[in-house]
Amino acid sequence: MNSQRLRGIIPPIVTPLDDDGHVDAAALTQLTEHLISSGVHGIFVLSSTGEVAYLDDTERMRAIDTVAQAAGGRVPVLAGVIDLTCARVATQAKLAAACGASAVVTTAPLYALNDTAEIEDHFRRIAEASTVPVYAYDVPVRVRTKLSIESLIRLALEGVICGIKDSSGDDVGFRRLILANKEAGSPLQVFTGHEVLVDTMIHLGADGAVPGLANVDVAGYRRLWDATQAKDWDQARLEQARLATLFEITSQIDGRSPDASGVGSFKIAMRLQRLIPSARMSAPVQETTDVEVLTRIAKLLRHADLDCGGLIP
Amino acid sequence: MNSQRLRGIIPPIVTPLDDDGHVDAAALTQLTEHLISSGVHGIFVLSSTGEVAYLDDTERMRAIDTVAQAAGGRVPVLAGVIDLTCARVATQAKLAAACGASAVVTTAPLYALNDTAEIEDHFRRIAEASTVPVYAYDVPVRVRTKLSIESLIRLALEGVICGIKDSSGDDVGFRRLILANKEAGSPLQVFTGHEVLVDTMIHLGADGAVPGLANVDVAGYRRLWDATQAKDWDQARLEQARLATLFEITSQIDGRSPDASGVGSFKIAMRLQRLIPSARMSAPVQETTDVEVLTRIAKLLRHADLDCGGLIP
Amino acid sequence: MNSQRLRGIIPPIVTPLDDDGHVDAAALTQLTEHLISSGVHGIFVLSSTGEVAYLDDTERMRAIDTVAQAAGGRVPVLAGVIDLTCARVATQAKLAAACGASAVVTTAPLYALNDTAEIEDHFRRIAEASTVPVYAYDVPVRVRTKLSIESLIRLALEGVICGIKDSSGDDVGFRRLILANKEAGSPLQVFTGHEVLVDTMIHLGADGAVPGLANVDVAGYRRLWDATQAKDWDQARLEQARLATLFEITSQIDGRSPDASGVGSFKIAMRLQRLIPSARMSAPVQETTDVEVLTRIAKLLRHADLDCGGLIP
Amino acid sequence: MNSQRLRGIIPPIVTPLDDDGHVDAAALTQLTEHLISSGVHGIFVLSSTGEVAYLDDTERMRAIDTVAQAAGGRVPVLAGVIDLTCARVATQAKLAAACGASAVVTTAPLYALNDTAEIEDHFRRIAEASTVPVYAYDVPVRVRTKLSIESLIRLALEGVICGIKDSSGDDVGFRRLILANKEAGSPLQVFTGHEVLVDTMIHLGADGAVPGLANVDVAGYRRLWDATQAKDWDQARLEQARLATLFEITSQIDGRSPDASGVGSFKIAMRLQRLIPSARMSAPVQETTDVEVLTRIAKLLRHADLDCGGLIP
Repeated sequence: MNSQRLRGIIPPIVTPLDDDGHVDAAALTQLTEHLISSGVHGIFVLSSTGEVAYLDDTERMRAIDTVAQAAGGRVPVLAGVIDLTCARVATQAKLAAACGASAVVTTAPLYALNDTAEIEDHFRRIAEASTVPVYAYDVPVRVRTKLSIESLIRLALEGVICGIKDSSGDDVGFRRLILANKEAGSPLQVFTGHEVLVDTMIHLGADGAVPGLANVDVAGYRRLWDATQAKDWDQARLEQARLATLFEITSQIDGRSPDASGVGSFKIAMRLQRLIPSARMSAPVQETTDVEVLTRIAKLLRHADLDCGGLIP
Repeated sequence: MNSQRLRGIIPPIVTPLDDDGHVDAAALTQLTEHLISSGVHGIFVLSSTGEVAYLDDTERMRAIDTVAQAAGGRVPVLAGVIDLTCARVATQAKLAAACGASAVVTTAPLYALNDTAEIEDHFRRIAEASTVPVYAYDVPVRVRTKLSIESLIRLALEGVICGIKDSSGDDVGFRRLILANKEAGSPLQVFTGHEVLVDTMIHLGADGAVPGLANVDVAGYRRLWDATQAKDWDQARLEQARLATLFEITSQIDGRSPDASGVGSFKIAMRLQRLIPSARMSAPVQETTDVEVLTRIAKLLRHADLDCGGLIP
Repeated sequence: MNSQRLRGIIPPIVTPLDDDGHVDAAALTQLTEHLISSGVHGIFVLSSTGEVAYLDDTERMRAIDTVAQAAGGRVPVLAGVIDLTCARVATQAKLAAACGASAVVTTAPLYALNDTAEIEDHFRRIAEASTVPVYAYDVPVRVRTKLSIESLIRLALEGVICGIKDSSGDDVGFRRLILANKEAGSPLQVFTGHEVLVDTMIHLGADGAVPGLANVDVAGYRRLWDATQAKDWDQARLEQARLATLFEITSQIDGRSPDASGVGSFKIAMRLQRLIPSARMSAPVQETTDVEVLTRIAKLLRHADLDCGGLIP
Repeated sequence: MNSQRLRGIIPPIVTPLDDDGHVDAAALTQLTEHLISSGVHGIFVLSSTGEVAYLDDTERMRAIDTVAQAAGGRVPVLAGVIDLTCARVATQAKLAAACGASAVVTTAPLYALNDTAEIEDHFRRIAEASTVPVYAYDVPVRVRTKLSIESLIRLALEGVICGIKDSSGDDVGFRRLILANKEAGSPLQVFTGHEVLVDTMIHLGADGAVPGLANVDVAGYRRLWDATQAKDWDQARLEQARLATLFEITSQIDGRSPDASGVGSFKIAMRLQRLIPSARMSAPVQETTDVEVLTRIAKLLRHADLDCGGLIP
């Protein structure tokens, strides 16, 4: 299905927003450039971190188009096509390809209550409609469904999907998936969505990682990747440990929703580093402006040797 | 917000499909007529039972338009506007009103991970955009989120929502909601989505019910309603017990998804009664054609004194 | 197995503790007398409300012995025999019978991870060892396991269990259980553990209720029972609504464990009414002494027309 | 609290049973000898794998006494003291120490519904009563409660617990625990209970592993440990991959409980290797005798280069 195996660090790029809540194309172009020049191996636009669920079709197309233009073919652009069920996802996949996506990424059906056979058929119908390769996205905390190893291998062998982004948090399952994939001839490209176990997952055989935190410290994840490719596992562990501590920025916004404190903290940390002009979130999520929170995030950035540009005293 | 309080039986109408999987407008017109002439107090089109998640915008508009035309103002037509987050739901609400919906029904955000304040704001934004009243739909098994009593009362007092369809399965919570609503001056119309506790919920003070099984036996639910209004609780309990046994049709399709065995069994039972011409389901859900299953469903229909038209020996 | 069908209100009696954390036998005797003279139909000692999990064997035997002595055969005394698996539960059942229990009440295995067949066998082994009838106790929030309707009916028809206390919160399931039990010839005595749906559950055919709140307002639950037996469902609903509001005492202790705020608030409300001398809880649970909480509980007691003896201004 | 840091492979030893379901002391002695002579660094008796929940006090004491005698001080013997709440666990801890246990291992309260402060106090009371060091055991699938990193570090710094066996399956949490522990001066000995991520967890800084599968292939886990200590991560991964495939024995007993298919498959694989004379399980769990299952397990043993002694053709 896809001529070339994708490997490495593929950040799920955040979506900068302007004051009206629309996609800020200029900022998104700049951010894409920053990530590519820092050595990423691909970009995943319209992920959960990219606030895909909050964007209507116009904004989604604008985001894909912007990233694809900015990438200019230097790295593949994967686009999230997250929608309720296959009829709609198929349409989204066509739109994404038309906007320049190299591949699309989608989940099991939302809202519907389906069984394994139906979920497999869901992916088959999307693949049939899509003109670009399809990656499966396993994120049970949002979708309710855990994709089974058997389904993933079967769909890959059929040529329906070419890879998987695993954000299930089930690491034992992830290792079993890696082993099962290898035994089946490695039909799947296997990516972890975890920020803090990238070294171990690559050691186990993952093809790469899709860490949201790479928006905040792309150089760190690139160094981590290089250490794993050099089989310098001690160096990889040290880099990963530093990033794991940095990931604590997502625990600084108390009493707020996961989207507000997770994606929200990424955006704040990026604004402090002047990587994006605004930390605005999509309605109804509100950006945090609490100075104490900002200060704690700035401290964690400095602790990780990242420059906060003096925005916070 | 709404001039008149809605009370009674409001079936979540199934969506008949033709051989190509499109909305069968003729069958839907006929079914609407059947329900209205059997005495329902409203119709809820594009509910979970109506396979809303599987239909794209074209099919959704066709379904609303058909039911609204067929109803011709005799009873209110509530339309489900189920989508990811408020930007999209607001658009769906406008389309639904344009197609003739008297009100719209929607859930907390899907896929997004929001907190209570964000969920309330989500409803406020939808209400602001909608030209017709908004009902909240609480169905945690599909949405992951349980709407809180405090949020519901607050949103009702603000005029954001006019009612709630509760399919949460949390009956203690439902009773507390009824009490809290009464104490607040009854700003909410409160409907239960349960098939088998309608008598007790109306006894407790619910304004009515939205039972999927009313597609299969609308006369039974109308008699149940009449018994509750006459305060003949023993008669109501007997009618409810008969319907609870009939509800066992949803447990006849073993090893299949909830949608296949739930909505699927309603459609089969309706086809056996010649209420719809086909039991076809939306892809990727497959209609069950197993003769043993059909026979068991036919038996349960006969046991409930419903005519199966001799389709099954 | 049991000569006589038990019906009515069977409070899960709280266990008063002395300053050293031991069972206060004098207070427990007095409380038993209060409940019986107020018209209860049985007493359930060593329930979750009775802090069974916190008491070692010596204290458990003391509690059963005290209640059985105080009851003096006027009403049946059911004893909770909550332990890990059947080997231990069987021993507990023998001890309970030796201390005067008329019947024992137990759950599916704890800690062990068993399937349906194993759980049924678990109950069979306990029944074989027990010299008194066995009730099943369905409380998934504590046990993790939901007992299936099929298992319960099968075990009842086999004579293994004589009844069920349902604290599962699954009211649709409870109604189906009632219908299935009736169809099977009513081998099970069916009791609800819910405080706030007693009227509806008895209307549906439950044999009675085991409400923890009856420790706080036994007269109210007795009036509620009498109204249901007189088929005065409006009166029952009013009494139940008053008790449902009173049940809000369990939501007054913010940020504490369910045991601290649930059982803890019962004990506080009982002490305020001078039904027990102390609201002390078993270690490691701490009694709440926050005056604001006590005041809110006292207000709810007065609102329910219960006398707080002037303990709180 | 403990003079010496424990590191390495500590198998949760299975409990061989005789035909009457009692602990088979001779077989347990032999198995202990086998594990120690194969180079384990400690033995954990009465774990979940050791069927602790099914054994009454007499059998528990017999098991501890047997293993402690057989170990003869060559390696530490940790004993599981699993019971409902602190009153009972404290007693179990005293009995375990009296039987020769070097340390005890226990969980958050069972059945009780406690908050973080109460759970911490639970451990404090157990430690106060115990004459030997206390390890915490985090196994939410059985206990319902996940122990927090903050609690574990605090209890370790207070000297209440000396280590943790993590069977939570939350590997991100486990990495954060390792980092937090290091930052706090490593007051905790940190062990993973996972069979298939031992290499990565030790790479991350875990002190060792408590893998049930080590009962089946102790030599493999010892080689895995040695590879990690030599920092030969490629060799460690290969050994771990072989063990991960072997772990598939736990997926061969379809449609049975986790205890029957998990511990049950370990016992079968051990009997096939003549490490124990019988695969009998504690009531109500039944040993699997299905020849197809045995054959599949034997195949997996052979695939892992383990000798099945010709018991299965």
